[in-house]
Amino acid sequence: MPPAGYHREVTHMPVFDDIAPQLAAQAIELPSWAFGNSGTRFKVFSTPGTPRTVQEKIADAAQVHRFTGLAPAVALHIPWDKVDDYAALARYAADHGVSLGTINSNTFQDEEYKFGSLTHADPGVRRKAIDHHLECLEIMNATGSKDLKIWLADGTNYAGQQDMRGRQDRLAESLAEIYSNLGSEQRLVLEYKFFEPAFYHTDVPDWGTAYAQVAALGDQAKVCLDTGHHAPGTNIEFIVMQLLRLGKLGSFDFNSRNYADDDLIVGAADPFQLFRIMVEVVRGGGLNPENGVAFMLDQCHNIEEKIPGQIRSVLNVQEMTARALLIDGDALAAAQAAGDVLGAHEVLMDAFYTDVRPQLAAWRESRGLPANPMAAYAASGYQQRITEERVGGTQASWGS
Amino acid sequence: MPPAGYHREVTHMPVFDDIAPQLAAQAIELPSWAFGNSGTRFKVFSTPGTPRTVQEKIADAAQVHRFTGLAPAVALHIPWDKVDDYAALARYAADHGVSLGTINSNTFQDEEYKFGSLTHADPGVRRKAIDHHLECLEIMNATGSKDLKIWLADGTNYAGQQDMRGRQDRLAESLAEIYSNLGSEQRLVLEYKFFEPAFYHTDVPDWGTAYAQVAALGDQAKVCLDTGHHAPGTNIEFIVMQLLRLGKLGSFDFNSRNYADDDLIVGAADPFQLFRIMVEVVRGGGLNPENGVAFMLDQCHNIEEKIPGQIRSVLNVQEMTARALLIDGDALAAAQAAGDVLGAHEVLMDAFYTDVRPQLAAWRESRGLPANPMAAYAASGYQQRITEERVGGTQASWGS
Amino acid sequence: MPPAGYHREVTHMPVFDDIAPQLAAQAIELPSWAFGNSGTRFKVFSTPGTPRTVQEKIADAAQVHRFTGLAPAVALHIPWDKVDDYAALARYAADHGVSLGTINSNTFQDEEYKFGSLTHADPGVRRKAIDHHLECLEIMNATGSKDLKIWLADGTNYAGQQDMRGRQDRLAESLAEIYSNLGSEQRLVLEYKFFEPAFYHTDVPDWGTAYAQVAALGDQAKVCLDTGHHAPGTNIEFIVMQLLRLGKLGSFDFNSRNYADDDLIVGAADPFQLFRIMVEVVRGGGLNPENGVAFMLDQCHNIEEKIPGQIRSVLNVQEMTARALLIDGDALAAAQAAGDVLGAHEVLMDAFYTDVRPQLAAWRESRGLPANPMAAYAASGYQQRITEERVGGTQASWGS
Amino acid sequence: MPPAGYHREVTHMPVFDDIAPQLAAQAIELPSWAFGNSGTRFKVFSTPGTPRTVQEKIADAAQVHRFTGLAPAVALHIPWDKVDDYAALARYAADHGVSLGTINSNTFQDEEYKFGSLTHADPGVRRKAIDHHLECLEIMNATGSKDLKIWLADGTNYAGQQDMRGRQDRLAESLAEIYSNLGSEQRLVLEYKFFEPAFYHTDVPDWGTAYAQVAALGDQAKVCLDTGHHAPGTNIEFIVMQLLRLGKLGSFDFNSRNYADDDLIVGAADPFQLFRIMVEVVRGGGLNPENGVAFMLDQCHNIEEKIPGQIRSVLNVQEMTARALLIDGDALAAAQAAGDVLGAHEVLMDAFYTDVRPQLAAWRESRGLPANPMAAYAASGYQQRITEERVGGTQASWGS
Repeated sequence: MPPAGYHREVTHMPVFDDIAPQLAAQAIELPSWAFGNSGTRFKVFSTPGTPRTVQEKIADAAQVHRFTGLAPAVALHIPWDKVDDYAALARYAADHGVSLGTINSNTFQDEEYKFGSLTHADPGVRRKAIDHHLECLEIMNATGSKDLKIWLADGTNYAGQQDMRGRQDRLAESLAEIYSNLGSEQRLVLEYKFFEPAFYHTDVPDWGTAYAQVAALGDQAKVCLDTGHHAPGTNIEFIVMQLLRLGKLGSFDFNSRNYADDDLIVGAADPFQLFRIMVEVVRGGGLNPENGVAFMLDQCHNIEEKIPGQIRSVLNVQEMTARALLIDGDALAAAQAAGDVLGAHEVLMDAFYTDVRPQLAAWRESRGLPANPMAAYAASGYQQRITEERVGGTQASWGS
Repeated sequence: MPPAGYHREVTHMPVFDDIAPQLAAQAIELPSWAFGNSGTRFKVFSTPGTPRTVQEKIADAAQVHRFTGLAPAVALHIPWDKVDDYAALARYAADHGVSLGTINSNTFQDEEYKFGSLTHADPGVRRKAIDHHLECLEIMNATGSKDLKIWLADGTNYAGQQDMRGRQDRLAESLAEIYSNLGSEQRLVLEYKFFEPAFYHTDVPDWGTAYAQVAALGDQAKVCLDTGHHAPGTNIEFIVMQLLRLGKLGSFDFNSRNYADDDLIVGAADPFQLFRIMVEVVRGGGLNPENGVAFMLDQCHNIEEKIPGQIRSVLNVQEMTARALLIDGDALAAAQAAGDVLGAHEVLMDAFYTDVRPQLAAWRESRGLPANPMAAYAASGYQQRITEERVGGTQASWGS
Repeated sequence: MPPAGYHREVTHMPVFDDIAPQLAAQAIELPSWAFGNSGTRFKVFSTPGTPRTVQEKIADAAQVHRFTGLAPAVALHIPWDKVDDYAALARYAADHGVSLGTINSNTFQDEEYKFGSLTHADPGVRRKAIDHHLECLEIMNATGSKDLKIWLADGTNYAGQQDMRGRQDRLAESLAEIYSNLGSEQRLVLEYKFFEPAFYHTDVPDWGTAYAQVAALGDQAKVCLDTGHHAPGTNIEFIVMQLLRLGKLGSFDFNSRNYADDDLIVGAADPFQLFRIMVEVVRGGGLNPENGVAFMLDQCHNIEEKIPGQIRSVLNVQEMTARALLIDGDALAAAQAAGDVLGAHEVLMDAFYTDVRPQLAAWRESRGLPANPMAAYAASGYQQRITEERVGGTQASWGS
Repeated sequence: MPPAGYHREVTHMPVFDDIAPQLAAQAIELPSWAFGNSGTRFKVFSTPGTPRTVQEKIADAAQVHRFTGLAPAVALHIPWDKVDDYAALARYAADHGVSLGTINSNTFQDEEYKFGSLTHADPGVRRKAIDHHLECLEIMNATGSKDLKIWLADGTNYAGQQDMRGRQDRLAESLAEIYSNLGSEQRLVLEYKFFEPAFYHTDVPDWGTAYAQVAALGDQAKVCLDTGHHAPGTNIEFIVMQLLRLGKLGSFDFNSRNYADDDLIVGAADPFQLFRIMVEVVRGGGLNPENGVAFMLDQCHNIEEKIPGQIRSVLNVQEMTARALLIDGDALAAAQAAGDVLGAHEVLMDAFYTDVRPQLAAWRESRGLPANPMAAYAASGYQQRITEERVGGTQASWGS
């Protein structure tokens, strides 16, 4: 064993060509709602050119794919993106070079859901919420979507307000009914969230609860890990590791945060955290398509431009994936085995500090994509065009 | 010195009559906006009977005072509560048994304020924001309000987005201009907040910043402490102590929280914290009117009834004030001096665990108030009446 | 349905006699190490009269039981409490009126465990750690203890230092071997902890991980919930509810905290949190002996007297249990069913704010116990006696 | 204005030669105690070759400077580093190529300080604590040290234990006496800390308190910002900005953290945070020697090698300083002025993602230093030599 702290004179970091195939296979799903307006409880600022329809959202999402080659699918949110003819919508998407992806349900904007949805004490409200999910499954059949993603706002604001135990049991029952209606190729993906909009208790607050619930359902039920949905200080890459180990990591909702569920651009608040997450994804086989991990964005561009915001986001994921793939695995294993704390850490940091941007730019160009997608989008005139064309109508936001 | 851990056989806790005068002098200001609808970025639920006008908000606030005797003033929010004739509004309030209190400015709902207000790099936006505050001062002259409370949403979402240092300097300049327009009996009270709606940096994020800014202005500038605006784990009563010591505690915005700025009913999330805060208020002379500490609520009743929510809140403050006043000061000082950790803590807890509700109920009745304000309000028929009468119009909420 | 916010004119809170049987059955296990010195990394202060031997620790623990009737068992920590003859130790305890309880293993104080124990990459270190637990099982056979409690300090300080996934797999293997050696009446109880002494990742950091690990082992494996081992803001009573629901709550380590794992007296930092925890214990049947939930203290009396500190602690648990049992269940269920947020919360708070201390004092006396255990202990002269007698020798602390 | 999100085709990032002079002037002070053993309350692991004397600590610190050229001074901790002849110690340091730096006082390891030091209610204990600081000033006179750094462990563990207000007043008095004894070139630097070892309240818990205290003293009193001493989520670079703006940033204690005061290697837990801090240092003139900001490490190498740990740390600071200096200031200002959120953020990230390591290595060589200090140290044989030579004696740790 070399002295601790020994810096490897010779490194065997993979070269870019080694990792290019995995990068080429990478696909990140975009949320249709990221192209609409969003904000805080204090104010939703509007932006010129914001879509008024789901078609315009898809058109915008297609721009992200056009300039990056990274975003071939668009996730829909029901009822925000409801249309009469989903087959037509799928064709519209295909015409724009993208496909329709995950269907996200919504049980938090009707007055009936004030005190819960799938967990509600009232069987009538539960029925309505379950039926909404069955409708989502029908939409999935029409769109060819694979995943039904369920995020629940259910919870309470005051101790004693509701019986948490009863709600948990009812959640299990409701999910079981929805699960029993899944097609053989479909999945139910349950998202957890630390808090908000409920401020005392949330019915699915942590990965443990999501795991216990989906484990009781069966193999087609998985967990969605939203990177912004954890308590302060939580080691998120540990959870990534654990869910992959347990075979239950269904999807990511990527974003970043400094405080609560800030929904900032992924990688913006803590790039090193995104790197560590991607390291565990690679380590646990999460890039392997047969493991079925879906990579999605779930962000709010409250004050920044939305299309460039999404371009920046998928590039951030791509760059961090590249860095994670560049780790010198042999050196890392050797340092770990030797108990060389500083050496092992340094192997990791060597990959993190490697500037992958020039090689990614060249590689993009070799594949017919712009070296600098941000600049290419800005130069394309698309933003000016939609700003001019999209006058009148109601800009899309969370409520519509 | 008795053995450590010694439990006093004889206690000299004050009796209720001793503390009644201080309770009788207690006054808590209500926020007009607590009577309108509020919610999260996900959903604002409506409630039957919600006010449509500032007059209806004042009428509702007057009910809280009617049943508790604790809430003689209503704080206004400009422009939400703008009227043509403030003298008439003051008379309207007086006719309902209350007065108009603190004026709260608002520089977070115009599109121009997307990137800041008093801190904005653009002199035109700063001018607009300063002028808004000068308008608030004029309203104060018309209403007889003493305090101008400034909470700023100013901040950024991404590192590098703006120059924090320049913003801080511009904040100082803007505040100085506003301060120079204060009448001799008026005060500028600057509120700080840990985060939200900005998610990377906030221009007035902590008491230290608020203190440094108001210390530079002069004696008529103070700090507002909102109990929900701190980082996790912050010892808030320490800040209460410190601001009182420095002569800079201008006012409280009372509410409670488990996670972020949840704006729950004061005392609901952590009653012991409210107790400790009131202990430091008492200790530091904060109940003494000449020290000028204003006690206000700043809450959101997202899912609970609003008028009873406010009644519950002022009762919580009253009950905790009573407990804080019941501390056996001699015993506490003796235990502290003796280094008797358990004994001193126990003196505090003896007051906290004392059930003051029966005595408060009897005392209320002796003063012509209902023993049980919550039940008395429920029985009064007021809620049913406003539910029936207030049909049509637009329910008030944060945007109106 | 009465108007929301309606305060029940008539309450049906249980009376003390109704709840006395459950209080009479309550038993809280004391940790032997709470009687030795403890501290922070900065300083361990000593105290006059601190035990030098396990026998002296047991004698001190017996005092807590003598004055409260609440603490009939003492948990041991191996190797700190190793003796040659455990049967003799059990007799010694019995002679003092207490029994020997849970056996706690220790794999964090040998140099070999610097990089882990049950998770270590080196099979030799894992062997040593597993063998230590098998030795603990033998001690349990000798003492008649039921539970083997495992808290692991295993983790890393730097990203990349070790392979988290491999460690998790090895943890599963190590636990399986220990589990396979359990007697039919014995249980393995796995404790989780958010962080410390590891500062990047901890191998069992959350209830989800503990649950996934023990679920893989079998019915005799359970989770230990230490109330100080969570991320800031975590709703601990939710986890209590969930683990009871899943049949996996093995035991509590009671203490309280404001920041990290402060190990303060249970109920001292946030009495309302302890109340809510006990409410969920009652709700989930956790007081029912057949559900097998063990209630233990795990605290550090760094600066306060140790024996009175333990007396204060068990009284805090008893008082909060009484308050939790006093909830008017019918009123609570009715308010919850009616969506009466304020009403339901108020039912809970009515119990919390009830001063149970006078009735508990009278009830204690009726059972031959002192009304005021703190004062009775102080008056007993025990503290003075041990202070005088225990001179020479080495005071017990975490390392011995 | 270009379209928002526009990526600058042409950048004017400074080239390395532009920033080299500022890097050449950089000096980071090492703490003597980083070379001794440290740990947690659970265990202090020992390391072969650990110093037994202050001379051996200085010899080790000199190695860090030898291989990096970055660490010309060593901070001492009194009484851990007490000697009879400080002039001789200064000569010893000079012979090893380093000087003696900041003097750190210690009022947390004597039994008298159990309940406080400069804040203690007992005048005798305060006298002792003040006298200790006067002794430190005498040592500073002998060593030529400029700064007296005061970190206080003072605080309490239980609400009510002590009177916070009285302690704050006594703190002011104690500091004033110490301050009045400063030489004209000496400074008093007061450090704040969120919590630990006190777990309820800390007497100097935040920058606001430290600022208020030193502002009351005078121009020679400053604040020390330890990067690990903040509440979760705190925006530390904002505080850096504010203290520089107020002229009160005296020094940094660099380290990093994920949870509490983890004292990990600076830059290890969150490299981007260190970058943002250095950006504000540059922005606020903190690299300008006349502004008097002292850069120090304050870390614990609990499980990693100590000398390489310190080498890694100063390199991390150097690398991040280089990145901060490489920001294209014109482009940043332009994007900020244009309200181009994504563009401004991208200018910052362009500097952060630039791999400065190759240029730094070449520059080091050009100055007669090793390109790779970690490898050079490992190859030097120093570690083996001290491991062999330093047998017997007592390894230094926090208590000695």
